[in-house]
Amino acid sequence: MKKSLGARRFIYPLPVLMVGSYDENGNPDVCNVGWGGICCSEPPCVMIGLHPSRKTLSNIQHSQAFTVGIPGASQEVVADFLGCVTAKVDPDKMAKSGLHAVPSEHVNAPVIEEFKLTLECRVAKMEQFGSHIQIIGEIVDALADEDILNEAGGVDIEKLDPILVDPSADTYHRVGERIGKIFHDGLVMK
Amino acid sequence: MKKSLGARRFIYPLPVLMVGSYDENGNPDVCNVGWGGICCSEPPCVMIGLHPSRKTLSNIQHSQAFTVGIPGASQEVVADFLGCVTAKVDPDKMAKSGLHAVPSEHVNAPVIEEFKLTLECRVAKMEQFGSHIQIIGEIVDALADEDILNEAGGVDIEKLDPILVDPSADTYHRVGERIGKIFHDGLVMK
Repeated sequence: MKKSLGARRFIYPLPVLMVGSYDENGNPDVCNVGWGGICCSEPPCVMIGLHPSRKTLSNIQHSQAFTVGIPGASQEVVADFLGCVTAKVDPDKMAKSGLHAVPSEHVNAPVIEEFKLTLECRVAKMEQFGSHIQIIGEIVDALADEDILNEAGGVDIEKLDPILVDPSADTYHRVGERIGKIFHDGLVMK
Repeated sequence: MKKSLGARRFIYPLPVLMVGSYDENGNPDVCNVGWGGICCSEPPCVMIGLHPSRKTLSNIQHSQAFTVGIPGASQEVVADFLGCVTAKVDPDKMAKSGLHAVPSEHVNAPVIEEFKLTLECRVAKMEQFGSHIQIIGEIVDALADEDILNEAGGVDIEKLDPILVDPSADTYHRVGERIGKIFHDGLVMK
């Protein structure tokens, strides 16, 4: 028996995107964003949805660039902190976070040293729909700490240990066991 | 030491979205879509990115509606199958899948009985960017099987047992242990 829950935003799982940007004075900021995902293969692009109240939005409007850091499970508290406070209200947000920002080599945005995987993005499109601004960023590079790479040079998900969100319970979770292979397991049904 | 991996689409984790639609003759189809996420709070909207080659795209252009089913770990093989084949090439795709479609009560799209959580969406915007069409769907209802609900009437993530994708290894994974609470754990750093 199926039950109607109303118009709920129940995509499972939601990502935890650490969006890094510079303000108009070159100060780095990082914001925890749950609205977003990959939207295009060529060029490779990520979409993020930002509320107009976010400092990150005015930063990106100015700089036309941002980074997306992927936090690990050990960084859950600081990742949540970066969603609990805004630089508009607490200018010491970044100092309190203890994170260290260095300039991206490719775009006008900060790379956070502590995040083991970071996408460097330049704004390709920005458009309001409803309550949020959808920003499409072209991914110009992905930066990874060497200690999360596997022998093939790809990212080892167990070493990255990324987190995700349950949109009903508002909880963070780790990624669990591997259960299959894409474009492979379903071939038995052809 | 950070290493450049090039312009990779490394958002962790990616969702596994089962996009349901009717073709011009009212035949149901379901497609496995990895590009997408929530993009807007009010109205509540999901964005999906579809390649022009997908049958699902022409279906949605015609019907102006779609559903998003969230598959469970026990449905990983059929979920992968729905990404391995297209109804353009294999008209028996749905019959082979063994899934059962019923009409949505709210939009012109099929609800797949076997998926325990389904978002019913009407198209609010459709626009090409790069290789893909970004479709914004307004979520008009979320339908859940009663056996995945908790006592508060929300979705129990362990009962839903959703899957996700590792974009580097191209593998499916379950969701792992709960590690924290949103807008809560970070408050200790304020």
